Amino acid sequence: MADPATIFPAPLLKDELDIVIPTIRNLDFLEMWRPFFQPYHLIIVQDGDPSKTIKVPEGFGFELYNRNDINRILGPKASCISFKDSACRCFGYMVSKKKYIYTIDDDCFVAKDPSGNDINALEHHIKNLLSPSTPFFFNTLYDPYRPGADFVRGYPFSLREGTPTAVSHGLWLNIPDYDAPTQLVKPLERNTRYVDAVMTIPKGTIFPMCGMNLAFNRELIGPAMYFGLMGDGQPIGRYDDMWAGWCTKVICDHLGLGVKTGLPYIWHSKASNPFVNLKKEYKGIYWQEELIPFFQSITLPKDCTSVQKCYVELAKQVKEKLGKVDDYFNKLADAMVTWIEAWDELNPSGATKSAELPNGASA
Amino acid sequence: MADPATIFPAPLLKDELDIVIPTIRNLDFLEMWRPFFQPYHLIIVQDGDPSKTIKVPEGFGFELYNRNDINRILGPKASCISFKDSACRCFGYMVSKKKYIYTIDDDCFVAKDPSGNDINALEHHIKNLLSPSTPFFFNTLYDPYRPGADFVRGYPFSLREGTPTAVSHGLWLNIPDYDAPTQLVKPLERNTRYVDAVMTIPKGTIFPMCGMNLAFNRELIGPAMYFGLMGDGQPIGRYDDMWAGWCTKVICDHLGLGVKTGLPYIWHSKASNPFVNLKKEYKGIYWQEELIPFFQSITLPKDCTSVQKCYVELAKQVKEKLGKVDDYFNKLADAMVTWIEAWDELNPSGATKSAELPNGASA
Repeated sequence: MADPATIFPAPLLKDELDIVIPTIRNLDFLEMWRPFFQPYHLIIVQDGDPSKTIKVPEGFGFELYNRNDINRILGPKASCISFKDSACRCFGYMVSKKKYIYTIDDDCFVAKDPSGNDINALEHHIKNLLSPSTPFFFNTLYDPYRPGADFVRGYPFSLREGTPTAVSHGLWLNIPDYDAPTQLVKPLERNTRYVDAVMTIPKGTIFPMCGMNLAFNRELIGPAMYFGLMGDGQPIGRYDDMWAGWCTKVICDHLGLGVKTGLPYIWHSKASNPFVNLKKEYKGIYWQEELIPFFQSITLPKDCTSVQKCYVELAKQVKEKLGKVDDYFNKLADAMVTWIEAWDELNPSGATKSAELPNGASA
Repeated sequence: MADPATIFPAPLLKDELDIVIPTIRNLDFLEMWRPFFQPYHLIIVQDGDPSKTIKVPEGFGFELYNRNDINRILGPKASCISFKDSACRCFGYMVSKKKYIYTIDDDCFVAKDPSGNDINALEHHIKNLLSPSTPFFFNTLYDPYRPGADFVRGYPFSLREGTPTAVSHGLWLNIPDYDAPTQLVKPLERNTRYVDAVMTIPKGTIFPMCGMNLAFNRELIGPAMYFGLMGDGQPIGRYDDMWAGWCTKVICDHLGLGVKTGLPYIWHSKASNPFVNLKKEYKGIYWQEELIPFFQSITLPKDCTSVQKCYVELAKQVKEKLGKVDDYFNKLADAMVTWIEAWDELNPSGATKSAELPNGASA
């Protein structure tokens, strides 16, 4: 395979990708990303006090939405967008008109590879999204489409074309994405291991998706990327990306789409307060023991041929099966439906579009 | 977690592990492995002409079996052991009396890690086998038991004890394990990417297991490690380890045991002849398109509580479902039953022992 740098002149997908950033502070962190992000358009979702002014470094093209904007644009449907929680970022996915989204937290900086070079995380995500995934069989040499790699002996030839990639989940050097109990037990642990691999998460396997450094194909999977009800007035926090990840993976499996994890790394600079996190998480830690088996055993009916249809069906099953765990899940199921209604309102062309099912789709 | 070197004084499991090597030539390759292998006992399975003498470097403790020995020990049941194919190695698993097996090809040498240090592959396999696996949920930071790593946010706490590890599948630098068509198309491709990760292959996912650099817990999974009917008088070759891997993974999933892949690497020195390989493989390449869906959809009944019971049930399903693909699979199914009979004859204490089912087992 030729060097991808010669195939794709930089910057890749400049007019087809939005960078979504949820924040409550000035975006000084963008200075470090300037060489990589400046050609792209930013969607900034301002959380918390809407009267506060967020400063964006000069030279970036952006649109910014605060809570007043969200309420004005969505009306009563704004109830599905979380407040005082980075879950609000999913509003940015909804208002984007682009095919691809990259989302990053404002405490994430440029990491270095083992040779000491700055990692262009966005470029790597785009390459992950533009090359196929292999969810139907495991390749022991990881991503078979990377230069220098291929499918190993014993890999069925009928599966070597792969399937479209919907999600690219990147990792974090320095501060790992631990829950509060693990943070408390290992306050000094830092992730220093650079694992030089991208892999497809197999069909049928759900995973803990972190929203810190995440890219996806909005056309293929956007309506499933709902970050739930967290923060102000809600009983939990820090499960927004987890919820989106469980729902997304189940729908990707059903529609025959791929989810990759691994490279690229970002540098996660600062551990959040474990005591605050514990308060946000403790119900989630308890509930997840029931949520994981629920998501592991879900099946979606064959007539769910679009992401929207899948998602509304999922909301129905959440209400039926998880409503008895806590009334919160009834509210969440309603919000999931509201989210889809709002998505379709803002994205009318895609509202009735059925996903074209690729090879190997189960629907 | 403390540095494993301080927990395990070297050499690990010296009296509990056999190294099984199938060969047709003098074992000069052992010179390079001397610092790591010499404390261990070798079981050499001599393939081909039994009148030939295989030279083993001085100072190694070993037992050697040629075809005459296999015929004498197994009598008519020797028919289940392949001839003129490295599949004969599984005879070594059967005659071993140890708890653990490491098997390696005689064209595999000591690889170096990115810092230039020799990799003690055997020690790394042992550590893989002695630490738990996590087949029931995916951890994005790979092996959570490695120093410097842990379970990420969103990983259910009830699953963090893990499950016993049955198999450690190691990888190869230099010559990758490609099939004949890929070898022909990419004759110069070399694997130079050192991926610093060990991961559990998720439950429900089968994988292409290579026998070049492989360790397993014989007590937990030994009877499933049958390398099938290959070579002399058989219509295929080079699917011995694949067959063992498919069967083993299905049984591990059923019994709640873990299979790891990734580190350690060995240095694979020499590509086998792709034209010869093509002749051996071409039926397998065709058949695997039906074999993979067969193994992906297998379920084993609850009363299959030992590896032997699982394996005999698998043989039954092979006959029922694959016999119509080719008569070869009827012969193979019979040989699978013969293998178990021979195993139990040589290992009478384990013959009727049921595996104790760990947490999360499906049986």
